[in-house]
Amino acid sequence: MGKSVIVINGPNLNLLGKREPEIYGSTTLADIEALTRAHGENIDIETIFFQSNQEGDLVDAIQRAGASHSGIILNAAAYTHTSVALHDAIKACGLPVIEVHLSNIFSREEFRHHSYISSVAAGVICGFGAKGYVLALDALADIID
Amino acid sequence: MGKSVIVINGPNLNLLGKREPEIYGSTTLADIEALTRAHGENIDIETIFFQSNQEGDLVDAIQRAGASHSGIILNAAAYTHTSVALHDAIKACGLPVIEVHLSNIFSREEFRHHSYISSVAAGVICGFGAKGYVLALDALADIID
Amino acid sequence: MGKSVIVINGPNLNLLGKREPEIYGSTTLADIEALTRAHGENIDIETIFFQSNQEGDLVDAIQRAGASHSGIILNAAAYTHTSVALHDAIKACGLPVIEVHLSNIFSREEFRHHSYISSVAAGVICGFGAKGYVLALDALADIID
Amino acid sequence: MGKSVIVINGPNLNLLGKREPEIYGSTTLADIEALTRAHGENIDIETIFFQSNQEGDLVDAIQRAGASHSGIILNAAAYTHTSVALHDAIKACGLPVIEVHLSNIFSREEFRHHSYISSVAAGVICGFGAKGYVLALDALADIID
Amino acid sequence: MGKSVIVINGPNLNLLGKREPEIYGSTTLADIEALTRAHGENIDIETIFFQSNQEGDLVDAIQRAGASHSGIILNAAAYTHTSVALHDAIKACGLPVIEVHLSNIFSREEFRHHSYISSVAAGVICGFGAKGYVLALDALADIID
Amino acid sequence: MGKSVIVINGPNLNLLGKREPEIYGSTTLADIEALTRAHGENIDIETIFFQSNQEGDLVDAIQRAGASHSGIILNAAAYTHTSVALHDAIKACGLPVIEVHLSNIFSREEFRHHSYISSVAAGVICGFGAKGYVLALDALADIID
Amino acid sequence: MGKSVIVINGPNLNLLGKREPEIYGSTTLADIEALTRAHGENIDIETIFFQSNQEGDLVDAIQRAGASHSGIILNAAAYTHTSVALHDAIKACGLPVIEVHLSNIFSREEFRHHSYISSVAAGVICGFGAKGYVLALDALADIID
Amino acid sequence: MGKSVIVINGPNLNLLGKREPEIYGSTTLADIEALTRAHGENIDIETIFFQSNQEGDLVDAIQRAGASHSGIILNAAAYTHTSVALHDAIKACGLPVIEVHLSNIFSREEFRHHSYISSVAAGVICGFGAKGYVLALDALADIID
Amino acid sequence: MGKSVIVINGPNLNLLGKREPEIYGSTTLADIEALTRAHGENIDIETIFFQSNQEGDLVDAIQRAGASHSGIILNAAAYTHTSVALHDAIKACGLPVIEVHLSNIFSREEFRHHSYISSVAAGVICGFGAKGYVLALDALADIID
Amino acid sequence: MGKSVIVINGPNLNLLGKREPEIYGSTTLADIEALTRAHGENIDIETIFFQSNQEGDLVDAIQRAGASHSGIILNAAAYTHTSVALHDAIKACGLPVIEVHLSNIFSREEFRHHSYISSVAAGVICGFGAKGYVLALDALADIID
Amino acid sequence: MGKSVIVINGPNLNLLGKREPEIYGSTTLADIEALTRAHGENIDIETIFFQSNQEGDLVDAIQRAGASHSGIILNAAAYTHTSVALHDAIKACGLPVIEVHLSNIFSREEFRHHSYISSVAAGVICGFGAKGYVLALDALADIID
Amino acid sequence: MGKSVIVINGPNLNLLGKREPEIYGSTTLADIEALTRAHGENIDIETIFFQSNQEGDLVDAIQRAGASHSGIILNAAAYTHTSVALHDAIKACGLPVIEVHLSNIFSREEFRHHSYISSVAAGVICGFGAKGYVLALDALADIID
Repeated sequence: MGKSVIVINGPNLNLLGKREPEIYGSTTLADIEALTRAHGENIDIETIFFQSNQEGDLVDAIQRAGASHSGIILNAAAYTHTSVALHDAIKACGLPVIEVHLSNIFSREEFRHHSYISSVAAGVICGFGAKGYVLALDALADIID
Repeated sequence: MGKSVIVINGPNLNLLGKREPEIYGSTTLADIEALTRAHGENIDIETIFFQSNQEGDLVDAIQRAGASHSGIILNAAAYTHTSVALHDAIKACGLPVIEVHLSNIFSREEFRHHSYISSVAAGVICGFGAKGYVLALDALADIID
Repeated sequence: MGKSVIVINGPNLNLLGKREPEIYGSTTLADIEALTRAHGENIDIETIFFQSNQEGDLVDAIQRAGASHSGIILNAAAYTHTSVALHDAIKACGLPVIEVHLSNIFSREEFRHHSYISSVAAGVICGFGAKGYVLALDALADIID
Repeated sequence: MGKSVIVINGPNLNLLGKREPEIYGSTTLADIEALTRAHGENIDIETIFFQSNQEGDLVDAIQRAGASHSGIILNAAAYTHTSVALHDAIKACGLPVIEVHLSNIFSREEFRHHSYISSVAAGVICGFGAKGYVLALDALADIID
Repeated sequence: MGKSVIVINGPNLNLLGKREPEIYGSTTLADIEALTRAHGENIDIETIFFQSNQEGDLVDAIQRAGASHSGIILNAAAYTHTSVALHDAIKACGLPVIEVHLSNIFSREEFRHHSYISSVAAGVICGFGAKGYVLALDALADIID
Repeated sequence: MGKSVIVINGPNLNLLGKREPEIYGSTTLADIEALTRAHGENIDIETIFFQSNQEGDLVDAIQRAGASHSGIILNAAAYTHTSVALHDAIKACGLPVIEVHLSNIFSREEFRHHSYISSVAAGVICGFGAKGYVLALDALADIID
Repeated sequence: MGKSVIVINGPNLNLLGKREPEIYGSTTLADIEALTRAHGENIDIETIFFQSNQEGDLVDAIQRAGASHSGIILNAAAYTHTSVALHDAIKACGLPVIEVHLSNIFSREEFRHHSYISSVAAGVICGFGAKGYVLALDALADIID
Repeated sequence: MGKSVIVINGPNLNLLGKREPEIYGSTTLADIEALTRAHGENIDIETIFFQSNQEGDLVDAIQRAGASHSGIILNAAAYTHTSVALHDAIKACGLPVIEVHLSNIFSREEFRHHSYISSVAAGVICGFGAKGYVLALDALADIID
Repeated sequence: MGKSVIVINGPNLNLLGKREPEIYGSTTLADIEALTRAHGENIDIETIFFQSNQEGDLVDAIQRAGASHSGIILNAAAYTHTSVALHDAIKACGLPVIEVHLSNIFSREEFRHHSYISSVAAGVICGFGAKGYVLALDALADIID
Repeated sequence: MGKSVIVINGPNLNLLGKREPEIYGSTTLADIEALTRAHGENIDIETIFFQSNQEGDLVDAIQRAGASHSGIILNAAAYTHTSVALHDAIKACGLPVIEVHLSNIFSREEFRHHSYISSVAAGVICGFGAKGYVLALDALADIID
Repeated sequence: MGKSVIVINGPNLNLLGKREPEIYGSTTLADIEALTRAHGENIDIETIFFQSNQEGDLVDAIQRAGASHSGIILNAAAYTHTSVALHDAIKACGLPVIEVHLSNIFSREEFRHHSYISSVAAGVICGFGAKGYVLALDALADIID
Repeated sequence: MGKSVIVINGPNLNLLGKREPEIYGSTTLADIEALTRAHGENIDIETIFFQSNQEGDLVDAIQRAGASHSGIILNAAAYTHTSVALHDAIKACGLPVIEVHLSNIFSREEFRHHSYISSVAAGVICGFGAKGYVLALDALADIID
């Protein structure tokens, strides 16, 4: 197989499918991983998955990614809006990062409209549910090439 | 015994009794737990206690609470003012959450006046020291019934 | 009987039970008074009630309270957010004041998030409906002792 | 006669005709009432008038209106910009309320540009002097039908 | 016939009756024009109608109005909140302008609360649906006389 | 005796001497009135005194002052910072108004730094305790002449 | 062929390939259209293209789209940040709209961080250059199905 | 003749001489063009003139200017304060642009103090009436050389 | 003679009587000094005068005042609104300082509403023209005693 | 020779040619003076030059200018953004003042975008380097005539 | 050996030397520790080192420091700007804390200009790279003595 | 002796030891100079001292420093927060500047939290009293080498 990408998911995304289904639907994180992995196989990209509720664990994951991956798909969830540490980790890791959100954060509460990640991400994809990860993988493939 | 409630305490509350006694007095976290447990026994509610300085651990604790408790008493301390992750965890867990603060956060520094938790809590109790946990337990009993 | 406490309610609370039932339910102000009085009798505290739609009348009531009461439970309703006069009256009266709100003001409109009363209150209780007055009475009993 | 409407005027409007004639002209409040009453008779609506300089009296008047009127025309004058209590009274009274201002508040001082009443009024009419009350009566007639 | 008034409608109002019926109802722009024309005939005022989605076309229409009309009824819709060019055109045209909005813009999104037009309009009428145009015509008749 | 001046005091000033003595000292409102009256007699100005905790009563007092007085000394206390109604009453009454504050409001809480009265007062005197009323009487005498 | 989608491009995008190549590269708008059309053919979606420097023309195009297309890909360029009219047109047109930007607007000037379009778009894709249109087409295909 | 410069005027400037003469005087746009053309002939620069009330037409004019002119004098009038599209067009056109205003925009309303054009203009000249165009032509001649 | 007071005047006050007479009248700085000196002699206080357009000279004057005076009357004019150095000098000098302004700064431009001096002054007197210096001398006499 | 104009330069402009050449080029203040003087001679205007790093010296220079000059060209450099004293001096001096900046202050740091001088200047010229002084002289000549 | 000091480093500092070398240079965290340790030995202070990407671990480290150290050198990196929990831990630990930053945070992004740590630190040192730790050790030695 | 450094102190620092001893202690400016000179001799750096209360004198001193010194230690005191002129002088002088403050400005009033100097200084040291100058000398030595 070819390139490898890590898909990093942040706090509360482990609850996906149980949490606020009126916003996210019944798709679980496992469903998303399966969908993304399948698409990765189609376009010859290995996908590794990581989820944590700890801001520092996400920082660690991004730091480690440089050694074994070619890019990062990051849904930092709530930490998107509060974490300068993730901002710094992204700048430091040297990999292209695609910021993904399941819902359209711009049509939700005011405090979700600002992201510390966007300004250092290669690009942003939001509002497309699980499909957003597939699109991100395509985008990343394009950038890596 | 009847219902079970988890009392979650956030960063630096483990230092209680040593820290800024002019604001919090000499009561320790163990004192508060004893006081709350005793009151819980009186009104037939089991009380479980958890404290961590890690934002992610508090998120984990709130996520797990749904499986074995009927409600949450949460003093998120400093994370009250900075954590969107706790906000999301509360919305996702499906349990009633009572926000408690030992001191009156509204008569302290400006940056303690905003809480990410209040808007998703069932209610807020602040300024009554250890007694606030007992009041929260009464309030929660009322809601659970 | 022992100590005496005055429960002061502000504008539009006389309409309770008729007004926005989706927020406050069908409990009337008379119901709240009966509930609070009953709890007061249980813990040996006399409760006196006062309601007015006039900001100045509430100021007067707080000023007079010093002569015959040991504490104040205050739901200033709309004046919570606009009255510096109540702020000053509380500071001047020398009694402990518990701020109560039936609904969780922090999950309502932005202009209800700031209170001129909180910074001079002993503590704040909000979001528990009529039960909030009972909790406030307990809190006040604790402070008065 | 058919429907009945109460026209409530706020602080300093009793001085009309004497006060800042370069903005309001020489029409008195009695002139406005006569004009409005005459138009009411034409369209078969009884008009009752009330004026007070007391915020609480205006709250009382709005609360009482529900029992005997079908709608309210409200020129809250200065309280427009500062009174959450009027906002709450309007929401609670259950009647359609038309907000009227003699002058165009948007071409005056900055602090007159925000109204606590507009968001809960059926509609707003401002800048037409005494004629505004007549237009409001027409608008209210339309809504009541 | 007597005086002539131009009724200028801004962007997306051509969709009226199809667009967001929960806010505007099923009345079409043609319905509004018919209603306004009929009322104009009653009070001996000719009414001419113009609609465009182009900010500059609205500026042109206001500029031209001075030559053949005695007043303007303007519902600038979205351009209300963003157009300094309309503000300048109104100041330059020398005619009285009545600002009309179908819905109550003050109970909608924050960005609809500010109008560049209000400060240079003779008056503002909002929240009364199609009826608002009729009221505006009455108001304008009063001013023109 | 010559000219007559009314001295209007706002909310909580009736408590003077009991309230926050570290800011205002032990002087009572009666002491201030005696001091001001004595000075008035020296410079041949009659002084009348009025105090109320009601915003509307202060508006009434200012409105009535035009008929029998030549000027107003106004310490609106808390309403200084929140009352547009007093602002309007001052503009309407046609008399020179001197704004007085016992303490230096600019070295107190942020919310006391803005006054709705200053912009329509003839002048402002603050920080001199009871002496401020005497200075205001001198200033008013100068303006009235 | 199956569904039809309109790709609407806003002001200055006609200059693409000549303009600020350090941000957008040398790809022209024709290149993007060819790339998007080719991908549309692959996934059986007809793609129609429209570009204008006129805000009102874009409003017209969105209004007309409802009659003959199943979705819109919109790169409103500069109007993204200033046009309430586009916001309203999107809400009114009833079609899913994907907001696309060639560059990462969040790493550019502050005034490009707010979009009037995002809150009414189905989703947002930015930062991927011409590839972003292809991703948007995939996303739209997913939504239309 | 030597270099050629285009002078682009924005919305409502076609009314010059009729509009707000207390700010702009009685000079018409034709007068300004004549004055500027005459000065251009003196310093051997051809001057072409364009005026439109349409934001998009101004964008078009700036885009086309690159092909046949050496510089642009731009008085965008009201669009100065609201148009990101003009900002982008100026950056894209590659010509030096001199921003001109007839009046001193900094002594007018607050919303005229910010310009989207200044940051991408070569320089700014304002407050000198028609003379400002002559100065701008001199400045442009200096830059072109 | 008894106590000595220094009267310090800031930038542009040397122009008094020539400058903006519609705000300050025709009284010169020499007139003010004469008036103040005369009043000082009446109440047995020596008055020394100093004026400078240099911020640093005013700082020097305040620093030196501690050695030979009992209090300071300070009209810092424009530096009132911009000088932290004067704020610090006042705190450091150890003398009571009365802030004086000839005009009512609160009814002038927004940028004159904030004073760096007020929070460290004993009190503030503004709006009474030259008379303000006399009042300030009385106030200072009262404080010094 | 005819009229006389004073050219006043503020802090750090004495370093011109040595300071930040990437912004200002290698032209010295002496070069600018020579260029301006030469142009003055051409149009029969005497030019006098003054530079100081002291805010108060600039105030003095503006005050004195009224006696012997017909207008002022002022590049207040850093004091542009912080000096209310210069604002007041310009209003008081009674001469037309042209504000000049070598660089385009609107494309530099945010804190250089506000000028206390612009609102009281006759006009503003910025971004043209030394040429700006020549343009200002032409503009001033036009105003003086 | 004498006193002991703990040097606590926050998120992403473990990457030092690899990360953004244009800001931090090629010095690694190990280099800094060696440099600091060597200097500690010179001035007879034991230095212990701790680094974590977890906010809570830093809180823990500060809490534990009280038991075995005399002071703390803290470079909280990204958490500097977002962590109220570190603010509280510092206040609670009772040790003097020196805040250190390698780069000058005030010449970087706006969001790095505010520190939750500065207000409770003994002092701040920033901009000197690795040397800053040596200076902090000197400063701490001075305070501890 | 080797390199030479100038230590520039701003307004009111000449009062050190007399002024607000609860913040700065009893150390005088002479003490600080002696301490700094002694340390300079130890590390072979000549230290020259300058103090002024005049903003412009500080600008002059910084401008002159380039000719005879290798670096500047600058405690601009109050001008830190208000002086763009010092900001510009530092950028222009070409020497490394260390910003020093005796007290921790971040734990004092809000208006002392922003510095115009920090963004152009090599680094910042604050909160260490006189010791801060010694640390700054060490830091400067490091930079100069």
